[in-house]
Amino acid sequence: MANWNNLDTLSSYKELVKTAGSVDLTKSMAGESGAERVKNYTVPMACGLDFNYAAKNVDEDVLAKLADLAQEAELVDKYAELYNGAVINTGEKRLVLHQLCRGQLGNDVIADGVNKRKFYAEEQKKIAEFANKVHAGEITNAAGEKFTTVVQIGIGGSDLGPRAIYLALENWAKANNTFKMEAKFISNVDPDDAAAVLNSIDVAHSLFVLVSKSGTTLETLTNESFVKNALKEAGLDASKHMVAVTSETSPLAKSSDYLAAFFMDDYIGGRYSSSSGVGGAVLSLAFGPEVFDAFLRGAHEEDKLAANRNIKENPALLDALIGVYERNVLGYPATAVLPYSQALSRFPAHLQQLDMESNGKSVNRFGEPIDYVTGPIIFGEPGTNGQHSFYQLLHQGTDIIPLQFIGFRNSQIGTDVDIQGSTSQQKLCANVAAQIVAFAVGKDDENNNKKFAGNRPSSIIIGDRLTPETVGAILSHFENKVMFQGFIWNINSFDQEGVQLGKVLAKKVLAHDTDGALAVYSDLLNI
Amino acid sequence: MANWNNLDTLSSYKELVKTAGSVDLTKSMAGESGAERVKNYTVPMACGLDFNYAAKNVDEDVLAKLADLAQEAELVDKYAELYNGAVINTGEKRLVLHQLCRGQLGNDVIADGVNKRKFYAEEQKKIAEFANKVHAGEITNAAGEKFTTVVQIGIGGSDLGPRAIYLALENWAKANNTFKMEAKFISNVDPDDAAAVLNSIDVAHSLFVLVSKSGTTLETLTNESFVKNALKEAGLDASKHMVAVTSETSPLAKSSDYLAAFFMDDYIGGRYSSSSGVGGAVLSLAFGPEVFDAFLRGAHEEDKLAANRNIKENPALLDALIGVYERNVLGYPATAVLPYSQALSRFPAHLQQLDMESNGKSVNRFGEPIDYVTGPIIFGEPGTNGQHSFYQLLHQGTDIIPLQFIGFRNSQIGTDVDIQGSTSQQKLCANVAAQIVAFAVGKDDENNNKKFAGNRPSSIIIGDRLTPETVGAILSHFENKVMFQGFIWNINSFDQEGVQLGKVLAKKVLAHDTDGALAVYSDLLNI
Repeated sequence: MANWNNLDTLSSYKELVKTAGSVDLTKSMAGESGAERVKNYTVPMACGLDFNYAAKNVDEDVLAKLADLAQEAELVDKYAELYNGAVINTGEKRLVLHQLCRGQLGNDVIADGVNKRKFYAEEQKKIAEFANKVHAGEITNAAGEKFTTVVQIGIGGSDLGPRAIYLALENWAKANNTFKMEAKFISNVDPDDAAAVLNSIDVAHSLFVLVSKSGTTLETLTNESFVKNALKEAGLDASKHMVAVTSETSPLAKSSDYLAAFFMDDYIGGRYSSSSGVGGAVLSLAFGPEVFDAFLRGAHEEDKLAANRNIKENPALLDALIGVYERNVLGYPATAVLPYSQALSRFPAHLQQLDMESNGKSVNRFGEPIDYVTGPIIFGEPGTNGQHSFYQLLHQGTDIIPLQFIGFRNSQIGTDVDIQGSTSQQKLCANVAAQIVAFAVGKDDENNNKKFAGNRPSSIIIGDRLTPETVGAILSHFENKVMFQGFIWNINSFDQEGVQLGKVLAKKVLAHDTDGALAVYSDLLNI
Repeated sequence: MANWNNLDTLSSYKELVKTAGSVDLTKSMAGESGAERVKNYTVPMACGLDFNYAAKNVDEDVLAKLADLAQEAELVDKYAELYNGAVINTGEKRLVLHQLCRGQLGNDVIADGVNKRKFYAEEQKKIAEFANKVHAGEITNAAGEKFTTVVQIGIGGSDLGPRAIYLALENWAKANNTFKMEAKFISNVDPDDAAAVLNSIDVAHSLFVLVSKSGTTLETLTNESFVKNALKEAGLDASKHMVAVTSETSPLAKSSDYLAAFFMDDYIGGRYSSSSGVGGAVLSLAFGPEVFDAFLRGAHEEDKLAANRNIKENPALLDALIGVYERNVLGYPATAVLPYSQALSRFPAHLQQLDMESNGKSVNRFGEPIDYVTGPIIFGEPGTNGQHSFYQLLHQGTDIIPLQFIGFRNSQIGTDVDIQGSTSQQKLCANVAAQIVAFAVGKDDENNNKKFAGNRPSSIIIGDRLTPETVGAILSHFENKVMFQGFIWNINSFDQEGVQLGKVLAKKVLAHDTDGALAVYSDLLNI
């Protein structure tokens, strides 16, 4: 069993703190030394991806101390405990098994009397068979017509991850002739969300995927009723248009309201559930089960790398360590995620949940307050769009914000245009290369307004093309980065008690059981 | 002429700093005193909106010191100089006239030999006439058929604001029978952005709006060529499918490549250009000119309030002052924008540009380095979605992040469902009310993991419904808030020198004129 200790009690951390300010990127990233760094400071990821950290404030000394920290905090051992079935989610007393949806990493994990890998794989097989039957026209609407649209009803982890991955692969699937059905998403309890989606589709040929692990999520059940109303008004039998993704113990599990139910369990956290049926149903329906399989394969390959003890062979661990260095030693408040790929337009929103909900904590695993900062703010938009938006602050603002770039050598669709000697894809890649160097090296100028201080750190994940496998690998990378950071901070990354109070008070408002400020706000909002 | 001084030289600021920590929301927002605050700490905005700041760390003492700061910094005088035509953008030596697109606030502004209010109004009239002719089928494609789709080609301010406003009003327009044409947007130089949009539309019935003030924006010109290629391949005459929004001096202004050209000028910054033809063309085509007029009216009404000297009658000024208090006195790094309205899904992305590009600066108006922090990080997603995502960190993370809520009593579409005694709209409103109180008051618990420290500040803009007028008023509120904060920090909020270095280096990459780190990154990305 690994030892769980607060970061500020570790001797390796105390050594690490002493290195603050030792690497100045305006010097180390300039000239030939910069070229050497870019060549050397790179770690292979799965599926041909690379994690390049040349433009981070590290050198061999800092890296050695980060390796010491990884060892003293027993990070890889903790990961092994997790995938071998320890109760890592101490708050809710649960195993943490989302990696097991993608493949077997260690020992068989037996829980609730079943082999969990087999359970997840069987549910995935059920989904694949269901999706194939829908695509083949064996499962149809009551009129015997094929479904043409799939609509996911879910919020938070049942929405952000699946939606981000759908958008990431929609154009790829169209270009590669594996596109089966358009997917739409209903998440917000705002009635205009469901109404707008319903107005935009042909409900008679739509299949709805209701996703709620507990079967009790307010927004999701409300939107289910919203959809059922619409189906009824269209003269349709709702139970012929809906499937459920839920846990076996939820009220949705055995209901006759659904064409089929696919199961997950309490060991898959919402924000880690894209690899389970939560992502599996909608993505298999949209793109075919083979595409979802490829996504899982990519994630599993990346999961394997996270078990490497050498930080230079473990990109998620290295990324996590550098992130903690930036947050706790260098004192930076946020990280921006900047994919140079329009297909990843909602990937930052998913990572925002993944990271901020996992590591936005102020107590350690034992419920004791901690004296250091934990999870940073995560935000981002695709490049080059962001360059024309908030990059001004990133370059010349008063706070330094570390950056996480993602870039691909090739586009997904392949249609391109050559203007002034370069394609759009080349222009896109030229911009991300330029930004890394601009942030790191800066530029002096006699006019202070045109001066760039530089020394603003970034890393980049570089790939050949955004595919199902590479999306899986990138998702796994960030999930495991967040996990390792939670280990380093000695917090529980797998509960979310901070969302409870708002729910309790909202119920009071709806029950008109309020006083004080809450009663006046309720009046102002006409509730 | 107002005096321009650094914030830390002002005696009122020194007094303000002494109040840090004086207001504890866990106390002041609890019980009856909380109810009184919610009733009293509210300022009417235009169009029936209210700005409620009860859950901010202010009391009468802090407010008095903020009023002193407003007076000493001559904020309202500076605003008057701006709208009367002073050279407020000192870096680029330009007037700042976006408010004049919406109405006359002060004296006639004569520049370049013309009355600028007349110029903007005339361009808007030209756009309205053009849009009406398109809707009436008097301007058609070469086959004499009506255009059904409008596609904006632009990036940054030519994309984010118009896109956010389009999404904000799309369902409202459909519900109110003023929806004329679907709008799409192409922005990113990523070829998959343009290719995906072109694959999703009927190009033969599409009208493209090319937006570039300078006529030289790399992404926009590249995407124009991309679109022209597609039109040519479809056997169409591109010049019959394109209009330009640009400055009179740009290469696009007099080109025969366009059906029409509508003009703006150098006094309208990109991120402030939604009220000019940049927003006017696409929104008038999508919804009709009357809708765009209503949007401008709402913005103009709000602009007028920003001239009030009493901070309790000037919501933008008050919001700006409280924001500076949070940033510089309380030391908070970011602000989250959280609209409880799915229609405002991209409004935070627009505010992100507006705020971070305007105030992410490290030198004052005179080019001297400053010793205090300026613009915060801005991010956000619609509620209730965000509640199931990053709110965990907002409630229980180690950093305090001030929040800007927006909520409406009624939905836009009006379709709703009653479940367990409340509608979806009521649930939405109950959630935002609950969140404000949860963040402010918190909750004790013997289990630290379930404890909410509270004292996390927020404000809320409350309205009856999201309409063209209220969108305009809300946009103006934030534009003027950002402007006042720039005045307080003594920075130039209207230039963006921080975007230049990346552009220069990207050109070098494309010209293969690189060495060092940049050359290696170029190799890794196959440029």
